Amino acid sequence: MLLGRLGDPGSEIPVAHTADGVVDLRSVVPDLGGEHLAPSSLTAVRQALLRGGLPLVADAERRRVGAAVARPGAIICVGMNYAAHAAESGAVPPASPVVFLKTPNTLGGPHDPVALPRGSVRTDWEVELGVVIGSLALYLDDPAESLDHVAGYVVANDLSERDFQLEHSGGQWSKGKCSPGFSPLGPHLVTADQVDPTALRLRSWVNGEPRQDSSTADMVFDVAFIIWHLSQYMALDPGDVVLTGTPEGVALSGRFPYLAVGDVVEVEIDGLGRQRQEIVA
Amino acid sequence: MLLGRLGDPGSEIPVAHTADGVVDLRSVVPDLGGEHLAPSSLTAVRQALLRGGLPLVADAERRRVGAAVARPGAIICVGMNYAAHAAESGAVPPASPVVFLKTPNTLGGPHDPVALPRGSVRTDWEVELGVVIGSLALYLDDPAESLDHVAGYVVANDLSERDFQLEHSGGQWSKGKCSPGFSPLGPHLVTADQVDPTALRLRSWVNGEPRQDSSTADMVFDVAFIIWHLSQYMALDPGDVVLTGTPEGVALSGRFPYLAVGDVVEVEIDGLGRQRQEIVA
Repeated sequence: MLLGRLGDPGSEIPVAHTADGVVDLRSVVPDLGGEHLAPSSLTAVRQALLRGGLPLVADAERRRVGAAVARPGAIICVGMNYAAHAAESGAVPPASPVVFLKTPNTLGGPHDPVALPRGSVRTDWEVELGVVIGSLALYLDDPAESLDHVAGYVVANDLSERDFQLEHSGGQWSKGKCSPGFSPLGPHLVTADQVDPTALRLRSWVNGEPRQDSSTADMVFDVAFIIWHLSQYMALDPGDVVLTGTPEGVALSGRFPYLAVGDVVEVEIDGLGRQRQEIVA
Repeated sequence: MLLGRLGDPGSEIPVAHTADGVVDLRSVVPDLGGEHLAPSSLTAVRQALLRGGLPLVADAERRRVGAAVARPGAIICVGMNYAAHAAESGAVPPASPVVFLKTPNTLGGPHDPVALPRGSVRTDWEVELGVVIGSLALYLDDPAESLDHVAGYVVANDLSERDFQLEHSGGQWSKGKCSPGFSPLGPHLVTADQVDPTALRLRSWVNGEPRQDSSTADMVFDVAFIIWHLSQYMALDPGDVVLTGTPEGVALSGRFPYLAVGDVVEVEIDGLGRQRQEIVA
């Protein structure tokens, strides 16, 4: 299923994109988040769509596209998960996943403008595959169990202020990851049954010029390993989002300028959709 | 006011501790979290208590003490904020606050047993002053504005697995901070009008033996500075919790053994109350 959320910030409604049009899911689930992303809930959505008769959203094209999922309990990020990006950042590929967090209030719609943080001189883009958890994952025995705990996948831009991240916090990265609007997710939540996360092309552009162009096949640690590994250290709850790292081609590499007011950033993953953000003051 | 939450996990009710007994606040606020910690909401609670007539909780003594606040949107932590603790950790006091995050699902009641994480060999205690946000703090102009955005204060134990924190994640600390139950908060939320956060004695014990004994006067960055500083990097929302760092006297110093099954940890801040956790498998 191709799910999503439409409407103004804070009043988005859950929808499904179908061959007949955009379907309003409010009679089945109040929102796409938390327990409403559990397997039983997504099964109820699937059955309702099969039965038919749900109302269409007549003006879907004119509505704002919200984040594809409601505010998560946690946004958990894996750093340096593509070898070439680790190299361009001056690091070696890690022996174990490098984990940091973003505050959940950084969530944004995929096409919302992004304000440069006050005092920012090095705001950067990062296209990433986002994994949305569907059922509690804690102390999983084996990576083979991981994908059973995934509700679906989203495109993410893990926006980052490199001075804040690398120079202002004694080496702890979160200070450069939590500015308002720094986690656009969407436009779609594609359910796990429709996605093979091991070979997805992911790309980014600034003002139409290509920046990143890689594949999730190049991950140091794949999605199944990441979810299993994280579950040894923390409880992943339904609705939580795991960002799986970015490939090479960011401004931190020194090959491209950082973002400035008026720039347009686009990030895309094949099969999951494309985001477009204008950078504003 | 001395506020808190009583009841089983997930069904706690908001209460106030008064000279007449423990008062049930459900007719005024559904819970102590998010917007219900805004100044207008706390004013409504104060007026309702002054008017009187709210029901008492007859069996308050027999109920579990829940976390003093509902699950926050974010738990934001300041590391190395006491010079002597930085020294015992092998670091120098930071020039700017070192910031990292805990997942909000680590929240626990102040007297709940704490399970050693699977595979843990170095689980450690950290008594900390927790600051609960009452109104949005973003790009504050001056630290003098900070305390206007604080709803109240809580005792926190920022439990940490040092191998996970320092050895397993390429230097990013969150992996050792997010095990289930690693953030007991409470027993009380003491409203800001009753607390001077600049000179509070904070202590910890293991099996009755003293460990930490310091004062918030020894902070490298005080509460007002921290809130102002964080607001330059992220939006602090009502209900968010800021943990302000721990003083010297933790196991990481090498002076004390790490926690083992059967140990009892107590942490206390004068005027805010005391926590007691038994360590279990």
